[in-house]
Amino acid sequence: MSASRDIDSLIDMMARLPGLGPRSARRAVLQMIRKRELLLTPLADLMHQVAVTVRECERCGNLGSDRLCDICANEKRANSELCVVEDVADLWAMERGGSFRGRYHVLGGTLSALDAVGPDELRIPKLVQRIEDEGISEVILALNATVDGQTTAHYIADQLEGRVRLTSLAQGVPIGGELDYLDDGTITAALRARKDI
Amino acid sequence: MSASRDIDSLIDMMARLPGLGPRSARRAVLQMIRKRELLLTPLADLMHQVAVTVRECERCGNLGSDRLCDICANEKRANSELCVVEDVADLWAMERGGSFRGRYHVLGGTLSALDAVGPDELRIPKLVQRIEDEGISEVILALNATVDGQTTAHYIADQLEGRVRLTSLAQGVPIGGELDYLDDGTITAALRARKDI
Ligand SMILES: [Zn+2]
Ligand SMILES: [Zn+2]
Repeated sequence: MSASRDIDSLIDMMARLPGLGPRSARRAVLQMIRKRELLLTPLADLMHQVAVTVRECERCGNLGSDRLCDICANEKRANSELCVVEDVADLWAMERGGSFRGRYHVLGGTLSALDAVGPDELRIPKLVQRIEDEGISEVILALNATVDGQTTAHYIADQLEGRVRLTSLAQGVPIGGELDYLDDGTITAALRARKDI
Repeated sequence: MSASRDIDSLIDMMARLPGLGPRSARRAVLQMIRKRELLLTPLADLMHQVAVTVRECERCGNLGSDRLCDICANEKRANSELCVVEDVADLWAMERGGSFRGRYHVLGGTLSALDAVGPDELRIPKLVQRIEDEGISEVILALNATVDGQTTAHYIADQLEGRVRLTSLAQGVPIGGELDYLDDGTITAALRARKDI
């Protein structure tokens, strides 16, 4: 029975990952067992490796292997611009965009009355401190356009008002986006922010 | 850079699993890193465990930890009924149904001219052998209602004709439907209403 139990445990644990349910977890586990040498063993090795080596950057909250992450340690990035994001996935999305050359600050979530997340649960005190210490002239609030994201943006704006230039990402129609697929809020925002051609 | 490279490799490999794309792989990896002790390390340990202990049953192709799987080794299961399925996911789906008490034979796929899969790539010769050896009186062909599944069912029916009672799941399996997508009740109903071929 032990192998079946291990497989069941593996499926249960995989099913807890975001984007996977019980069915896709079962299919993923079977696929891994089928490709034991190519997938299962290398995945297990990489996971151990990541579990041992990856840590949060002491300054910005990004992931890396040292006290400071690659971005904080990179002398070519601009110190004057700081982009505030909710989590590391958003930082990665900004980096894929490839046009931002400043530094980041990863909050680690959003303020949420429902989940009892206050400023001290996030990296907000640390953000205020960085504004004091690092000669930052502009803070770009790249938070998600959700209720909690915008509540958090307003809270941070209140904290930093008068100390630094505060900006946010422009709202509008994404490149290649079709109007028919966009939600009404996006269309409304894009219309309000319309500009002369 | 090494931690970032490990994270990237882990995301790339996770993205190869069925049901996961690059975006859900990124989210899954971040979730694992966030829950290092609860998710990342236990997952790595379980994967190693499964990689080392899990093997194919010599008789039926199911997964287990011994020469014979739990079902083949279980003396309470009926020897007279043999259920033929495409893969282990389908066996699991049948077992979730909970009403079949016989044995299984896992083909390991379907015949496919396109993918050059012939009878010898599957466990079809082994199936014919089992009919000779094991005193099986009924073979239930529980193959998917796809073109390749039905082609395979016909091929097997030709091979076994006259030697054994042949039945298939009939009622409740939708056209083009795959067993692993069906709810348990449907599978039970289809099994009860099985008919001779
Ligand atoms: Zn950093
Ligand atoms: Zn077996």
